[in-house]
Amino acid sequence: MIHGIWERRLLEEIDYAKGSFSVAGWLHEIRTDGKKLVLVMSDKSGVKELVLNKEDAPPEILEIPKGSHIVISGSRESPLKIERVDVVSRPDAEWPIDLTKINDHSDIELVKKRHLYIRSPRMIAVLKIQSEILRAAREFLDSEGFIEILPPIISTATDPGLRGAKIAEIDFYGSRMKLMGSMMLHKQMAVAGLEKVYAVSPNIRLEPEEAKETGRHLSQFYQIDLEAVHWTYEDAMHLGEQMLVHIIRSVKERCSKELDFLKRDLRIPRLPFKRLTHKEAVDLARKLGFEANYDKEIPWEAEKAISMRFKEPFWIKDYPDASRGFYDKLGENARLKDFDLMYPEGYGEAISGSEREHTYEGVLRQMKKTGIDPKDYDWYLEMLKFGMPPIAGFGLGVERLTRFICGLQKVWEASPFPKVPGVVSP
Amino acid sequence: MIHGIWERRLLEEIDYAKGSFSVAGWLHEIRTDGKKLVLVMSDKSGVKELVLNKEDAPPEILEIPKGSHIVISGSRESPLKIERVDVVSRPDAEWPIDLTKINDHSDIELVKKRHLYIRSPRMIAVLKIQSEILRAAREFLDSEGFIEILPPIISTATDPGLRGAKIAEIDFYGSRMKLMGSMMLHKQMAVAGLEKVYAVSPNIRLEPEEAKETGRHLSQFYQIDLEAVHWTYEDAMHLGEQMLVHIIRSVKERCSKELDFLKRDLRIPRLPFKRLTHKEAVDLARKLGFEANYDKEIPWEAEKAISMRFKEPFWIKDYPDASRGFYDKLGENARLKDFDLMYPEGYGEAISGSEREHTYEGVLRQMKKTGIDPKDYDWYLEMLKFGMPPIAGFGLGVERLTRFICGLQKVWEASPFPKVPGVVSP
Repeated sequence: MIHGIWERRLLEEIDYAKGSFSVAGWLHEIRTDGKKLVLVMSDKSGVKELVLNKEDAPPEILEIPKGSHIVISGSRESPLKIERVDVVSRPDAEWPIDLTKINDHSDIELVKKRHLYIRSPRMIAVLKIQSEILRAAREFLDSEGFIEILPPIISTATDPGLRGAKIAEIDFYGSRMKLMGSMMLHKQMAVAGLEKVYAVSPNIRLEPEEAKETGRHLSQFYQIDLEAVHWTYEDAMHLGEQMLVHIIRSVKERCSKELDFLKRDLRIPRLPFKRLTHKEAVDLARKLGFEANYDKEIPWEAEKAISMRFKEPFWIKDYPDASRGFYDKLGENARLKDFDLMYPEGYGEAISGSEREHTYEGVLRQMKKTGIDPKDYDWYLEMLKFGMPPIAGFGLGVERLTRFICGLQKVWEASPFPKVPGVVSP
Repeated sequence: MIHGIWERRLLEEIDYAKGSFSVAGWLHEIRTDGKKLVLVMSDKSGVKELVLNKEDAPPEILEIPKGSHIVISGSRESPLKIERVDVVSRPDAEWPIDLTKINDHSDIELVKKRHLYIRSPRMIAVLKIQSEILRAAREFLDSEGFIEILPPIISTATDPGLRGAKIAEIDFYGSRMKLMGSMMLHKQMAVAGLEKVYAVSPNIRLEPEEAKETGRHLSQFYQIDLEAVHWTYEDAMHLGEQMLVHIIRSVKERCSKELDFLKRDLRIPRLPFKRLTHKEAVDLARKLGFEANYDKEIPWEAEKAISMRFKEPFWIKDYPDASRGFYDKLGENARLKDFDLMYPEGYGEAISGSEREHTYEGVLRQMKKTGIDPKDYDWYLEMLKFGMPPIAGFGLGVERLTRFICGLQKVWEASPFPKVPGVVSP
């Protein structure tokens, strides 16, 4: 491993250090405790209280402002012996947020001040878990023969906005290009040759500003988006639940320290997950006192109430015709061959997918039913005209998975650079 | 592994099949050869000529149009015995491009028809190699203790356009948001807490339309973007060359079939790479008959000529003050502590990076020199005001690396969904 200028230890390693040590980190607090001095510091390994004898401490240490980045060198005795403190950077003013306590600040403030809050121990724990989620997902998909592709950012066509979300556009040399609402159309393009594809795909959906109240919507989010040829939607559900269990197991094994810090007791779900048909889910919603219709999507509040009743993730499948995207395959009894995976405990939707309508005529028919203008999908329709094999696949929202795994209140904490509907932020 | 509806073989496995087999793929050609019938088919494993006795072939086989997706079932004899052909999809018109021969088509045509061309054996080979590049890069960075983060797509501030490229913007709830020119500012934000970060980061740069003539510019491209605290630029160069060798070695080991198909003889470079100072590179450019200035970036044609003289990748370092981004650290003698890695054989720039200017005052000074308005960088400057540790890092262009590894003429072939300056495409 390449270490940079000096062999620096992490704060968590200090307890095991033999002889001298050198650590670097953010200084959050200095307090006196009788004859002792307590420095509260953090680095990527977490928060650490360093205890030293006041009389041994370099006197200039008391002058260092909170929020400074410091390097301390010393030797491991009890209490610590600090021989030298270097202030690497010193804040210009008092910190507007406290990195070790989040409850004093509004959510929106922490989104707008993300350029500072991102270095908090809490965000570091979440982002380390998110990186393990990505690693584990790729490990699983690689072992299943999927090929990763670089997702599109702009195109002349994308998945149309759903449930009222708008698609963003840029000027591209005098023409308009759309930002991806999802890479649905592009993964169909790629899977025709590669047969099993996935991407960690960024989406921009300008949800109505009210969506910020739900705590589960971001205007910018990522999906693990995959597709496979000659698959049914049952095959895709089978893969989805295995992938989720693999990810959760990996996070439990490799990020137990971070889960403890977040006070999250995460259970590994049992396979296979329960499968409700849409009809059964509507019946359950009605039993719980919600209005729900056999021919429509389940309202969000009802979905959440159902999810609260479960202790394990569960599928809802066979949604009614025309209630979803034009690319869902129509099966028997006016039911689509599609599915959502729901998290338990009220965490809501995890995965959305289907067997895809892969014929030109079939897509035109479904476009008409869902009020989509075929003129906006020229290359996509040409692609279908020249033929496609049958396919199935899904998208899994990365931030929502991170939120569930970490047990976070708001999905905004599950993104390093969150964009909340209506909120201008870094 | 989850196989989908049936245990389908790949075309490349037919030769080893025992008893019966079932394969699915695209039909490119049917020709007769005496009493034999030759089907040219492809799937993700490559192109295969299937030879059968004309009299044994199902008669309907001759009627299947080129470009159909078919499933053939039979048994492995010599010649093959085909018992059944199912046409899964049939094109509606004659194919506008030939997937097995690229030389008949202009580059731009293959970009605009990417929704069809992406299923060509050539694109499949390139994309499989690209996926191995990403896997190997992550494997290396994970082992070096880097944490992967999800890159930003939109923000109020980004790296300013370089060498005449424009930054794209969207309307965000009545405000303007920029698409990332690079995630330079955001990776500085993240590294303050995570200490070693990377992302596979999408960038949109609207290069001048003339840039399409170079064959090395895309309006949408990806970088492996990384940053580490307490590193010098020498540490970053050290990491960069080790990562590149690791990637090339992995591709050679795991994608030899694809490299053969692309006729690419790829050498593993020797470590360490040669380091030229900017001054030495200018001297060399002049010796080769180019105009080059000790106080400016090296003109692109001169850079290419220098790269043609090398058989191995090489570094150019210590660029003149104010010739690069405001975030490069100024060292001694009005030289920046920065570097580019150049591919040999005329493939041009691979990596660009530096030790970063991490102080508020230093960045303001460099902004002034490079003509940047600090007003556009409010959160970034606030972040610096509250203090940063010293950092170094770089970006490595994924499509340019793919181009070099695959030996491609144009970088457009190194992207699944290329956006070429001025060309509207899927």
